[in-house]
Amino acid sequence: MNRRFKRVSSLIMGLAFGLGAASSAWSQTALDKVMKARGLTQKDLLAAAKTYTPTGGRDEYLAFSSGGQSGQIMVYGIPSMRILKYIGVFTPEPWQGYGFDDESKAVLAEGKIQGKQINMGDTHHPALSETKGDYDGRYLFINDKANPRIAVIDLKDFETKQIVVNPFFSSEHGGAFVTPNTEFVMEATQYAAPYSKDYVPLEEFNDKYRGGLTYWKFDNQKGRLDLANSITFELPPYSQDLSDAGKLASYGWGFTNSFCSERYIGGIERGRPPFEAGCSQKDTDFLHVTNWKKAEALVKAGKVKKMKGMYYIPMKQAIKEGLLYLIPEPKSPHGVDVSPDGKYIVVNGKLDSHTWVYSWDKIQKAIKSKKYEGRDPYGIPILSMKDTLHTEVEVGLGPLHTQFGAKKCVAYTSIYVDSMITKWDYCKGKVLDQIHIHYNVGHLVTMEGDTVHPDGKYLVSLNKLAIDRFNPVGPLHPQNHQLIDISGDKMQLLYDMPVPLGEPHYVVAIKADKLKPEVRYRSGWNSRTNKRSPWRTRAGREKVERKGNEVNVFGTVIRSHITPEIIEVNQGDNVHIHLTNMERAEDETHGFAMYGHDVNLSIEPGKTVSYSFKDDRPGVYPYYCTEFCSALHLEMQGYLLVKPKGYKAKASQIKAGQVYTKRDYDKQVKTNLDTQAVIDSVVAFITSRNYKDFPPVVALVEDATDQLGFAEKAKKKAEAYAAKKDWQNATLWAGQWWQYQVKTADMGLRAKTYLEEHGAKKVK
Amino acid sequence: MNRRFKRVSSLIMGLAFGLGAASSAWSQTALDKVMKARGLTQKDLLAAAKTYTPTGGRDEYLAFSSGGQSGQIMVYGIPSMRILKYIGVFTPEPWQGYGFDDESKAVLAEGKIQGKQINMGDTHHPALSETKGDYDGRYLFINDKANPRIAVIDLKDFETKQIVVNPFFSSEHGGAFVTPNTEFVMEATQYAAPYSKDYVPLEEFNDKYRGGLTYWKFDNQKGRLDLANSITFELPPYSQDLSDAGKLASYGWGFTNSFCSERYIGGIERGRPPFEAGCSQKDTDFLHVTNWKKAEALVKAGKVKKMKGMYYIPMKQAIKEGLLYLIPEPKSPHGVDVSPDGKYIVVNGKLDSHTWVYSWDKIQKAIKSKKYEGRDPYGIPILSMKDTLHTEVEVGLGPLHTQFGAKKCVAYTSIYVDSMITKWDYCKGKVLDQIHIHYNVGHLVTMEGDTVHPDGKYLVSLNKLAIDRFNPVGPLHPQNHQLIDISGDKMQLLYDMPVPLGEPHYVVAIKADKLKPEVRYRSGWNSRTNKRSPWRTRAGREKVERKGNEVNVFGTVIRSHITPEIIEVNQGDNVHIHLTNMERAEDETHGFAMYGHDVNLSIEPGKTVSYSFKDDRPGVYPYYCTEFCSALHLEMQGYLLVKPKGYKAKASQIKAGQVYTKRDYDKQVKTNLDTQAVIDSVVAFITSRNYKDFPPVVALVEDATDQLGFAEKAKKKAEAYAAKKDWQNATLWAGQWWQYQVKTADMGLRAKTYLEEHGAKKVK
Repeated sequence: MNRRFKRVSSLIMGLAFGLGAASSAWSQTALDKVMKARGLTQKDLLAAAKTYTPTGGRDEYLAFSSGGQSGQIMVYGIPSMRILKYIGVFTPEPWQGYGFDDESKAVLAEGKIQGKQINMGDTHHPALSETKGDYDGRYLFINDKANPRIAVIDLKDFETKQIVVNPFFSSEHGGAFVTPNTEFVMEATQYAAPYSKDYVPLEEFNDKYRGGLTYWKFDNQKGRLDLANSITFELPPYSQDLSDAGKLASYGWGFTNSFCSERYIGGIERGRPPFEAGCSQKDTDFLHVTNWKKAEALVKAGKVKKMKGMYYIPMKQAIKEGLLYLIPEPKSPHGVDVSPDGKYIVVNGKLDSHTWVYSWDKIQKAIKSKKYEGRDPYGIPILSMKDTLHTEVEVGLGPLHTQFGAKKCVAYTSIYVDSMITKWDYCKGKVLDQIHIHYNVGHLVTMEGDTVHPDGKYLVSLNKLAIDRFNPVGPLHPQNHQLIDISGDKMQLLYDMPVPLGEPHYVVAIKADKLKPEVRYRSGWNSRTNKRSPWRTRAGREKVERKGNEVNVFGTVIRSHITPEIIEVNQGDNVHIHLTNMERAEDETHGFAMYGHDVNLSIEPGKTVSYSFKDDRPGVYPYYCTEFCSALHLEMQGYLLVKPKGYKAKASQIKAGQVYTKRDYDKQVKTNLDTQAVIDSVVAFITSRNYKDFPPVVALVEDATDQLGFAEKAKKKAEAYAAKKDWQNATLWAGQWWQYQVKTADMGLRAKTYLEEHGAKKVK
Repeated sequence: MNRRFKRVSSLIMGLAFGLGAASSAWSQTALDKVMKARGLTQKDLLAAAKTYTPTGGRDEYLAFSSGGQSGQIMVYGIPSMRILKYIGVFTPEPWQGYGFDDESKAVLAEGKIQGKQINMGDTHHPALSETKGDYDGRYLFINDKANPRIAVIDLKDFETKQIVVNPFFSSEHGGAFVTPNTEFVMEATQYAAPYSKDYVPLEEFNDKYRGGLTYWKFDNQKGRLDLANSITFELPPYSQDLSDAGKLASYGWGFTNSFCSERYIGGIERGRPPFEAGCSQKDTDFLHVTNWKKAEALVKAGKVKKMKGMYYIPMKQAIKEGLLYLIPEPKSPHGVDVSPDGKYIVVNGKLDSHTWVYSWDKIQKAIKSKKYEGRDPYGIPILSMKDTLHTEVEVGLGPLHTQFGAKKCVAYTSIYVDSMITKWDYCKGKVLDQIHIHYNVGHLVTMEGDTVHPDGKYLVSLNKLAIDRFNPVGPLHPQNHQLIDISGDKMQLLYDMPVPLGEPHYVVAIKADKLKPEVRYRSGWNSRTNKRSPWRTRAGREKVERKGNEVNVFGTVIRSHITPEIIEVNQGDNVHIHLTNMERAEDETHGFAMYGHDVNLSIEPGKTVSYSFKDDRPGVYPYYCTEFCSALHLEMQGYLLVKPKGYKAKASQIKAGQVYTKRDYDKQVKTNLDTQAVIDSVVAFITSRNYKDFPPVVALVEDATDQLGFAEKAKKKAEAYAAKKDWQNATLWAGQWWQYQVKTADMGLRAKTYLEEHGAKKVK
């Protein structure tokens, strides 16, 4: 019967079948037929051509989208609108092991609120790090509105590295926005609350509730926010909203708008009109203008006191030092956006039909001449709208946010109530074009559209309602991100992209070639601290260390086994399993999950991760690799055995389920020798080419060489047992020798194919 | 200054700008230019035309994909390959409120393992409910490999309704697979463990560790799995793997394959060859053939005993009653798939290069004639491969899974090592076509390809590695689902779709028109129990009930306020906030998050959800709506005030932050009267059309009518305060009257647009 089964080795040399590189069935007739069947117009075909990205193709831009209430970041490509990754930020995510391994649990623990673990976030505004006002592709920041926090994501590996909690605020919407060299990250309150975090009755709202604005210091060297060098401005209990940092002309300043400067408190249940009525009664709210550069100088001069671990500037001091001004703005505005040259500040009054363009020149003049139209109830000087406004433009009903185009003076504004995007000229104050979207747009984004050098080209409309745009999926709908071509005079709708998870608020889009993410970690790396892990180990050095009840398992993972495969501990032990991925090949991640445990680890090449637990219940807990990593992936398994307290082992041995003979051994060895011949031919091919010029091939060759080394060791063991006529062990080790060979061949063949497809040359 | 601000009401009548329905810029030249610039071939253009779906277009199929280690379900459209939704299943997901509201916490709590909350899952195989072997679009099932569980998702609202825990198993890979009328859902063990869940040393593996196969009874009326009527087969400690239920010819039977029938135990750390070597040493493993129909009859006859709450059939009984047979199959196979007519069972030997086709006719004959080639160590009769095999076909190196085409005898098999899909004829045993994929495919799916009537048309290759297919996003790569056109003789690659979250294992794809999801719930609905919530309330009936320390808040949400807006409780109270969404309009979801609390609620139209908590710390906790629901969304806010124990309130009132006069009141009333004129014109338009023929419009009209009713009440309050010359309250209520009007107008205008766009007719 055995003859029926051809062994893999005899097949590695390649299949007899000519793999039909599926012959082109293209013809104009075929195209016309498809278009007719699918009801596509010529315009649709053009849109398809502008967005379709064939296999292996790259997107020109990467979009980083807030994940809304999912608490995550969504990454997608433009123009293909394909989602590439969700990054765990405020919410645990098991695929990435985020919130499941000890290392990332420590990051999430930084985000505790008053000692309480929070497993969600309401992410709103992502911001990319900048150098001289342009994206530099290094870091990404995102806020949490529900619990005022900012997270830092490193774009080298797309992982969350830090979460900071604002020590003053109890609500926050206006973050994150960076200053032009990422000196600071801006974060403003939304709903006022007492800084003390104590119970203060609403009757004392005007006196004891406060808004605020924090400039979080970013350490560009360490890539971390630095509480100790951050600065918070005390602000009145208005609902501060979004911010934007000044740039070029207005460098050193920040702009923050607000709503509910009525300081109204609702209470519909007690007969009071609700918040929505009282907070939108006045015709204007206030744009807050703050001078962070001067505040920083005051800090350096030792003139700012610390509170709650950071620098704190009371309103009184801000007023006295000329750090804070107010300007009336159309009521309940949404976005405030500074033009690329820093000369104009655009505010959108969401209950109005206009955008309002303020002139930085005029604001400066008013500040310098101390020309105030009055002061607010807290004594903050108010510059008049008349003195500071450049122009107002009627753009449509419910304008929310503005982004900028590549051409001078061109801006795009999202129009919520009218469901459209308006293109307009903020210098001359006139509308240039409008396009309907579906439906009710919130933010919008143009390519690098909030930097000093917007790219134009594409615009994404982040629509709040999808309603009938997609196949129905129940009462909870996806959002709809619509891609619009803005390269010409008229805007053209290209693509509707459903957003399957969360309600994104803002998106930033960066030229893809500015990003240089890594494909592997240095061996034994703690990716969260960006240091070598003290828990790393290497092949052959795996060990279990026990000190009292503390058990540390220094393990490894590699195609296709976890070392150790059996872990024995005692009931009540504090167990720490540390696993290092020994692979170097791109995309060769291993996972780890275990019965009865709330754990999944994601162990990318080079990474070391840890999982700590205590089992109070004796039992048998199978564990296994959760990433399909090779043909033998399902066999990448093990058992955790938790022995009862005081358990005495009986002296006995594991019984073989299957008995092998010399015949089995000889058969296996024959197979192995055949396989080795294949490997030799592949190795000859690779080494005869300039393979060292191809980093992915170098990584594959390194991994393959490791595996071949392991094969050699297994071979020696097999031969030693055979010499003792222990056919059981001889056959099993010969089997393992073959397993290593197969992996060597697998990687070698992939390297060979890569060299062939990438035009490698013969050497010598 | 006020004159500068035009009020919304004056604009509702529509903008002056002609909204350029962006004029078509299409021309062959434009198309050629785009193709050249983007490097597209004619073949690419054809693929683009086959997949591109213009705005508002529908996909022909919906794919339900396992979310792998994310623990979720991913839903995407075919052929557009756009992801429509992630459904929270085993992992909490805050956007959906899943695992955050009391109702869904109860579902997740069903999935506790030995009392421990598990917040992840390793989902593998989704299965759609079937009637007569065809998908009926009612329910979806998915398993968790890490902790043996099955979840039930209702396709009326795409929500997880139930999680069941297998009481016997400690590991499970082979689920979920349904029988042809969803009588049962199959679930098989992976790594053997003791049923007792106690510590049992590995030395007793052969005797005390067990595999198994559970047939979960599905109650088609209730839409829930029924533990008490489910049946578990005890099986040997082989690693059982995937299953498939027999159909038509083989109806009443099930097929489950296995690996590691060597019963090998690794231990590389103690010098033993690893699992991967010992578990792949023998040439064959066993296909398990089980008779569930007969087992069910035995249950009904009272011949099966119960254990752990379900029916349990020991091997001895199964053997005696003829319920269980083994057939040798190529070693370490992956998929077992029954042909649409139920006559053939296809097994793929992943370490081999063949698919093996067994004949149901031959298997039956062998069983009937009791022709066994022997018995396994547990006494289970083994049918010989020779007696049962129909044919074997050389399809490529590392065949894993098979799906079926629309044409008779056509099958498609995924080939892992060779990275390709092979199309072949399982009747005649010959290969028809092959296509390369990128890279290393696991499962594959054809449209309704595991039913009795496969649709063909498309195939998705679920590739395990993406490597270089997409823009790089760090060491952890997306997966790559490749869409292939299988409508012609040759397979054609259409699209590469990155999978941004988790590693999907299997996908099922159903004709989209078989699904009829709802867009709203009946008012006051608990969606998880599918019953009216005892905590529901209605507009005007909101209340706070206190009994000792138990505080129940019966609240509502509607554009744009939460009732109540102020909640006062005492330190240490057990607080339960219950919120009912009063909207009926499609996609009008509200959310709820609160500072210092780990909560986000998703409250779709009609739904009632609850959030229970206890605050031991006095303080001020802002809360707000987390779904951008209207222009006044940011003002949809409130405060939870937790008073210190023994706190005595001072008699005082909330101070107005802003004072209003008769002039303010008159101005607001003028605005409101203008707005009413607009509303009247819209109402006249709608009621003059056959709007009742359009359900989305009927819902909008209902919501608008509600809002108009609220407006009328606010108007009366404003007028009553005005009569008393209380201009403060008169102005605020006039403001709220206007807020209700704006919402009425917003919905009315949307209804008007809908009628215009859908060809509504004038009536009478």
